[in-house]
This record gives sequence, structure tokens and C-alpha cells, in this order.
Amino acid sequence: MDLQYPLELIGTFVFAISGALAVRDREHDIFGAGFTGFITAIGGGTLRDVLLGAYPLVWIGDVYFLYAIFAGVFTAFVFPKIMLKLRRTMFLFDTLGIGFFTVLGVEKSLSLGVRPEIAAIMGMFSAVMGGVIRDTLTNEIPILFRKEIYASACLVGAILYLVLNYFGLHRDVNLLISISVIISIRLVAVKYKLSLPRLD
Amino acid sequence: MDLQYPLELIGTFVFAISGALAVRDREHDIFGAGFTGFITAIGGGTLRDVLLGAYPLVWIGDVYFLYAIFAGVFTAFVFPKIMLKLRRTMFLFDTLGIGFFTVLGVEKSLSLGVRPEIAAIMGMFSAVMGGVIRDTLTNEIPILFRKEIYASACLVGAILYLVLNYFGLHRDVNLLISISVIISIRLVAVKYKLSLPRLD
Amino acid sequence: MDLQYPLELIGTFVFAISGALAVRDREHDIFGAGFTGFITAIGGGTLRDVLLGAYPLVWIGDVYFLYAIFAGVFTAFVFPKIMLKLRRTMFLFDTLGIGFFTVLGVEKSLSLGVRPEIAAIMGMFSAVMGGVIRDTLTNEIPILFRKEIYASACLVGAILYLVLNYFGLHRDVNLLISISVIISIRLVAVKYKLSLPRLD
Repeated sequence: MDLQYPLELIGTFVFAISGALAVRDREHDIFGAGFTGFITAIGGGTLRDVLLGAYPLVWIGDVYFLYAIFAGVFTAFVFPKIMLKLRRTMFLFDTLGIGFFTVLGVEKSLSLGVRPEIAAIMGMFSAVMGGVIRDTLTNEIPILFRKEIYASACLVGAILYLVLNYFGLHRDVNLLISISVIISIRLVAVKYKLSLPRLD
Repeated sequence: MDLQYPLELIGTFVFAISGALAVRDREHDIFGAGFTGFITAIGGGTLRDVLLGAYPLVWIGDVYFLYAIFAGVFTAFVFPKIMLKLRRTMFLFDTLGIGFFTVLGVEKSLSLGVRPEIAAIMGMFSAVMGGVIRDTLTNEIPILFRKEIYASACLVGAILYLVLNYFGLHRDVNLLISISVIISIRLVAVKYKLSLPRLD
Repeated sequence: MDLQYPLELIGTFVFAISGALAVRDREHDIFGAGFTGFITAIGGGTLRDVLLGAYPLVWIGDVYFLYAIFAGVFTAFVFPKIMLKLRRTMFLFDTLGIGFFTVLGVEKSLSLGVRPEIAAIMGMFSAVMGGVIRDTLTNEIPILFRKEIYASACLVGAILYLVLNYFGLHRDVNLLISISVIISIRLVAVKYKLSLPRLD
């Protein structure tokens, strides 16, 4: 799949934009916004690779990821109004992003030889922990705890990928199905404001 | 000591229950509660091992720890009322847990060849940092900063273990004494609401 | 440069004092203050080395850093009034510290073979992330997001060091210039309350 590498860079770029814009309403200066975009873009994959001991980290070993982040932050700075008008588009990109990064994180973890249970968790972490770290640093309740079904959609997609993979489904088809399921769950959850039940 | 491995699993199970229940009064859904139980159970040991560069992490290398966490979260979900009635029992388990994980963290660190000063800190981290990470993610003041004597009891027990170990005390006796001291300090501190003095 | 090692220890000592004093007005007991001093002193370098996979961590491999931290926390405890009267001096020390640790972090990263773009980020992280982690744990808005020009001064100095290094400037001269630039930017920014613009 020759598309994987450019798609990863695009995903990183989009995550950096949404991270930088996430602080727009608050008191951060442009440095803080850039820093937040950076953390959002690299946080999930970095946590995954630190937990797995997979060095060098992706963005340290391949400088193009850094350039994708710079480009994203720069775009958020120069075209903030356009970006915010595109908020709905950005939401779609973010949703595509979490679907894509989840499955990619699962695959990377499997390739490092961990068990599927671990790979599922790592896939979810890849997609959502950048936002969680961003929210923690900026003193927000992390997205994980407040949004409609979000991380759990990633977990479901990760498990689905692993199951289909176990049954020998062709990788490209599997990618397509698993990512689509994550995206669909997320879109339906947001549209109908679906949440998981609480303990009580 | 053949009991060590099952005790570790039980400790992990108990930490996962208490982590999942910790968010009960708040707005988290069951996914958030499960995530919080997971972080509470693995956080301390994970931070210790990442700082020491000790890969693979315990719960990544041995899937039974993950199962212990799932079982703990599941128990918190299915029997929340029973678990909360057992709150006092849970507090005792948590106290046993921090005693046990402190000394275990000291031993693991020593086995990796670090100095005793470092091992003492790592022992304390093993016991308390899961709760600290959980509290940080959920925007609470970490337990470390608000509770009656907590982390400092672990630090005292860790140092005691190292001193007795230095003087050649038999490991089993040492374990028993050091863990008992941590538990006793904690129980007395909670019963009499003892805190360390503040700076002023 | 034989001064580097003692300067690192002094920097660590000063960061520990300022970290322990940072919580003075709040509800933390002396253990919490000590813990905060510890995190402030080691946080930045630890994050850098974990991201780079550079083990053992400095303070784990060389126990004198731990002693410098203990000495700093102890000083903050025993002489808090003197330390607070020295607040202005402490601010100067902190400013010297971030200048020094930035450039040192750049050099360490380069020596590990990473690209200059990464080294610049790692230099900044070395200087500021200890304070960011401290603020996150204590539920403050991290210094990075609220202060006058702070982390961005470090980033400018890091980039300057790399540029001058590229053009073959003698290391000692380069150190002097780059650190001076960081310190000057920071002092001028605080004196005139300069901030970077915000997005809007």
C-alpha cells in the first residue's frame, strides 16, 4: 500500500492544525498554540512507542513528520479563519485521522511482536492519547472523558481489525473495513449524541 | 516466595477496581471508568520501568496482568454497589497494595543494578504514581498532594527495606517488616488524620 | 570546558529550590514540596532522554544529581524565608538555568546523532518541561502557556546555537553567545511584560 506513508504525513498535518486551533479561544500565544499542535500530532504515537520501547520515535527518525507538523501549525496561524470555517471539514479529517492512526498503531504493534490484546490498546492509544496529553497540559477534562463515543470507537475498530486479520482477510480490505467502522461509529455517535452508559 | 506472582496479580486486580470506582461520582461513562482503572493499575510500574529502560513493560510482556485489570474493571462495573459497600475493605486492599508494590518496586530496581537511593524512589513511584497519573488526567489534585501521609509512608518503607537488606536480614522477614511498616504508618495516619507539616 | 559538570549540578540544585518553593502558597506538605522540587529539577532532562531512548537517565546513572536535588529541597525547607527574600535572585538563577540547560540539551541531543531540528526541540524541552510537568501535576496552567516569552526564548537560543555551530564557531564562544541571548530575551520580556501575539 504505497499510500500509507503520504497518508501518515497528511494525518500528522491535520492533527497539528486541529491541535493548534484547539487553543484558539483561550489565552495562549502563538508559541503555545504551536506547542499544542505539536503535542497533539505526536503524542499518541510517541506514547505507544515509548511503552513498546520502539526507538527511534517516528518523528525523531524521520524529519518529514516534523515538517508536516510545522506546516499544520503554520496553516492554522496564517489561515485561522478559513480553518475555522472548515471546522466541519476539520472534524471529518480528525475522524478519518483517528480511524487511520488506530489501525496503523495496531499494525506497528503487531510488527513489534506483542500480543493482539496489547496491539488493540496501542492502536487506540496512537489515535487518542495525543489529544489526551494536550487536554491534560491545558487543564481541560481530556476528550476521552467528555465526548460522545470516541476512544471506544477506536478500540472496537482495533479489535475488529485483529479479528479479521486472524481470519486471514486481505490487509487492504481489512484496513478499509476497520477504518470505516471506526469512522461510522464516531459519526453516528456525534450525530445522535450517543454516549456509553455511566456506572451507577 | 511462590506467593509473589499471584500477589502481584491480585494487587493489580484491586488497583483496577479502585481506579474504576474512583470516577463513579463524576461524569465518566463506563469506557472512561475502565480506562481510569487501567491507568491506575499499570501507571506506577510503567513509569518505573520507562525511567529505568526496563523493557518489555510488565503488562506488555505478560498478558495475565491485562486480564487481572479487565477482571477488576469488570468487577467494578457489575458489582458497583457491593464494591462501594466494601469501601472500607477496598481501602485496606489499597493500603496492602501500596505496601506490597513499594517493596516489589525496590527489589525490581535493585535487580536492574541501580543504586539504593534510586531504588527507594522507584519503589515509591511503583506504588503511588498510578494514582497520580489517574488524578492528573481527571483534573484532580493528585492524591500525593492532598491525602494524609501516603507517598511518604511508601518512601519510609522503601528505605527501611534497603537498610535491613544492607544488614543482611532474610528477604521474607524483611518483606514482612517493611510492608507492615508502610501499612501501619498509613493506617495510623488515616485514623488520626495525621499530615506532614507545611512549609511556612 | 571543565565547568560544565559543576554547572549542571548547580543548575539542578537551583531548579529543585525553585520547584519546592513554587508550592509554598498552596496546601502541600513538605513531602509534596520536596516531590515538586524533584520533578522540576529532573523533568525536562528526563523527558528528553526518554524520547531519545538515552539510558540510563542522567540522575539514575549519576547519584550526585540526586544529592543536588536533596540539597536544593533541604535548602528550600530550612531557609524558606531567606529563599523568598532572594526571589529576585532566584528568578535570575532560573533564567540562567533555562539558558544553560537549553544549550546543554542541544549538545547532548546532537551527540546522540539526531538532526538539528530535533536537537532544537530537545534543548527547549530540557529547559522548560520540568516546570510544565510540575504545573500539570499541581493543576496549574503550565508556565509555558501563561508567562511572558519563556519557552520561545529557549527555542530561539537553541536554533542560534545550531546555526553558529554549523558555521564552525568555537564551542565556548557559541555557548556564551547562545546562553546570553536566551537570558537577554527572557529578562527583557519580563521587564517589559512582552508576550507573543495570540491567534485571532
